[in-house]
Amino acid sequence: MLNLAIVQPTVVGNGWQPYCTVPFKGSNCHTSQPHLNYRHSGVNCPALFSSHSIFSFNTMTAPPDAPDLRPLLDLGVAFSASRVLLTAVELDLFTLLSRGPLTASEIATALKLHQPAVPDFADALLSLNMLTREGDGPEARYSNGPLPAYYLVKGTPTYKGGFFEMCAIRLYQYWGHFTEALQTGRCQNESHPRNAGAKDVWSSIFGTDEKLEEFMQAMGALTNDAQRELAKKMDWGTVSSHLDLGGALGLLSCEVVSANPHVKSTTLDLERVSKLARKNIARRGLTDKISIASGSFWDWPFTKADVITMGLILHDYDLEKKMVLLRKAYDALNPGGRLVAIDHLIEDDRRGSVPALLMSLNMLVDQEGGFDFTSRDFDGWVKEVGFDHSEKIELVPPLNAVIAYKKGS
Amino acid sequence: MLNLAIVQPTVVGNGWQPYCTVPFKGSNCHTSQPHLNYRHSGVNCPALFSSHSIFSFNTMTAPPDAPDLRPLLDLGVAFSASRVLLTAVELDLFTLLSRGPLTASEIATALKLHQPAVPDFADALLSLNMLTREGDGPEARYSNGPLPAYYLVKGTPTYKGGFFEMCAIRLYQYWGHFTEALQTGRCQNESHPRNAGAKDVWSSIFGTDEKLEEFMQAMGALTNDAQRELAKKMDWGTVSSHLDLGGALGLLSCEVVSANPHVKSTTLDLERVSKLARKNIARRGLTDKISIASGSFWDWPFTKADVITMGLILHDYDLEKKMVLLRKAYDALNPGGRLVAIDHLIEDDRRGSVPALLMSLNMLVDQEGGFDFTSRDFDGWVKEVGFDHSEKIELVPPLNAVIAYKKGS
Repeated sequence: MLNLAIVQPTVVGNGWQPYCTVPFKGSNCHTSQPHLNYRHSGVNCPALFSSHSIFSFNTMTAPPDAPDLRPLLDLGVAFSASRVLLTAVELDLFTLLSRGPLTASEIATALKLHQPAVPDFADALLSLNMLTREGDGPEARYSNGPLPAYYLVKGTPTYKGGFFEMCAIRLYQYWGHFTEALQTGRCQNESHPRNAGAKDVWSSIFGTDEKLEEFMQAMGALTNDAQRELAKKMDWGTVSSHLDLGGALGLLSCEVVSANPHVKSTTLDLERVSKLARKNIARRGLTDKISIASGSFWDWPFTKADVITMGLILHDYDLEKKMVLLRKAYDALNPGGRLVAIDHLIEDDRRGSVPALLMSLNMLVDQEGGFDFTSRDFDGWVKEVGFDHSEKIELVPPLNAVIAYKKGS
Repeated sequence: MLNLAIVQPTVVGNGWQPYCTVPFKGSNCHTSQPHLNYRHSGVNCPALFSSHSIFSFNTMTAPPDAPDLRPLLDLGVAFSASRVLLTAVELDLFTLLSRGPLTASEIATALKLHQPAVPDFADALLSLNMLTREGDGPEARYSNGPLPAYYLVKGTPTYKGGFFEMCAIRLYQYWGHFTEALQTGRCQNESHPRNAGAKDVWSSIFGTDEKLEEFMQAMGALTNDAQRELAKKMDWGTVSSHLDLGGALGLLSCEVVSANPHVKSTTLDLERVSKLARKNIARRGLTDKISIASGSFWDWPFTKADVITMGLILHDYDLEKKMVLLRKAYDALNPGGRLVAIDHLIEDDRRGSVPALLMSLNMLVDQEGGFDFTSRDFDGWVKEVGFDHSEKIELVPPLNAVIAYKKGS
């Protein structure tokens, strides 16, 4: 039978024989009850695989010094390990287990799952260190591993699962068309005609203010540590006014004025979002410190400020739009002012930045024209619009900041 | 702006504050040019996220002893890293680069890719250790890293990319519906109504004998090391006759008779496949040693044998069908004979078998009713059909073998 499934052997040392053509000697076969049951066989379609006849002549032996195949297989099938976690978050398994250990059968009942599939699902999560298990067999009870217990239980202050929910219901699928994105440069998300039906997914995230807020809290949970670091690490001593562009719920403004009470901060985002920012800022008792502005940063005339920040904004756009924003920020800054961009900065040597490079490719899949950049790229752009110089500061890698300095008067 | 993209910060130690409800003080906002540009906003759909109002009251600070978030994020976004490799194999980038180093621009031209996306793609592969790079910037030239150079260049005897091609064009997408598979127990592959159009993909793999053979060579490349190990490691001294069920191109039979020239082997597979097996066996000059039988092992009356083998067969089926095959094998074995199953055996404690458990979940996604098993499961089944005892032998983990012994007469 054909095996279409994940196989993950390693290479063992064996006598190495270079491939060679063995003379064709004819054949001698016993046949019995011919039978063919391939699904969808018989239709000839454009080839995805080209033919390499030499291939079928090889003896498939590996030399003693063959490199270990496993890292390649691990990366090649990592999508399935990743998907197991994303589905667990999507089903909210970890919140369920936070209430107490459950058997596979109890999990199946609570989450309405196909009973026979649950032990493999749970034990795969166990082997990936996401669950723990007490006992064996049908009576065994599963609990959350340390990481999901801390980060993936909804309703706790440390929940960071919102991003994984997004991956589970959107990004995983859209990355399935990464090849096309690479061939065409075209976004593969809801905007692609193929995904006309995905409108529902999008609406389920943003359909109500409550959902929108929950989503932004979830996304904010992943960037808030870097924002807090910026509020502490950068010198805010001489800063009177701060403007955060695309500030979402105003989390960065909250961090800035909490750590630097002399600063007056303004957070700008679209009207529907800024309504939520107002609520969030009020809850934190910072209403007097932070102004909330509604509008698109493309249209809104930036107020004068000593520091302008953009967190995960610049990477959303193509170079032309990036330059428009940088110019606009330059013009709005007071003499001696600073523009700060928080992003997944690619290392200048572009050799080891896995998360930043994946993020940039994610822009290709999910954000028309967007791309991430190095601090050297940023330095070139900001000098072009008039800034004096720039520097990079480490926040919470891979989220870091670049700061562009405008000359004093 | 909303950020929908992959973010991968780590948690840093900060003063831990338990979440609390801050009194609502009212708001004070500046609005300007209200503007809303969310894609697909405004439609209210069934919630995928439930609401947890307490969540929005937290201060999102992490305690000093917060566990490192990075392993969780790495696993959560591993699908995209995996997809980058699969797309590189799908585009046959590594075969292209085996002919000599190329710049990003030359790669884009040769593979007809969107030029601006290629540097991030190539540098992501570089950072994942799949490529190397000489130089920087537009003149930099990329070459294959050691693993792709060895395993992912088509037309070489060590090519193992066929499996990744399958992942790229089939399994990645079907795993996108893993949640549904878990909820319904239903296969998510070409047989699912959603994938009616995927018929073309299937046909492109099996539409011609040449493609079918190439595919089977590719799959065989991943199991052949384990087959060779079985041929060497098991005691074949007393064996006269061997029958391999679902033998594909007859690779296992070739290994058995090469290592144990006294054995007469029969390889059984569907007619279309056994035609190819005949060619392959003839090329290896083993036609006199190996009989080729055509048919389905469900219908074919097994010939008597001292050893019957099934490589990656048993895991394809549900328990009822597994038992039918085991019974049929028992009946066909000579007294003192052995049944050998090569599969991704799940460890008996089901605690650390990531590849085997993912394989079993892959059966859920791609093979109706199929599942992998432990050697203890196997032992129970074979005793039920009359075997005396069984043992596990290590081949090339995670591919291992279980051997069931029939009593002598």
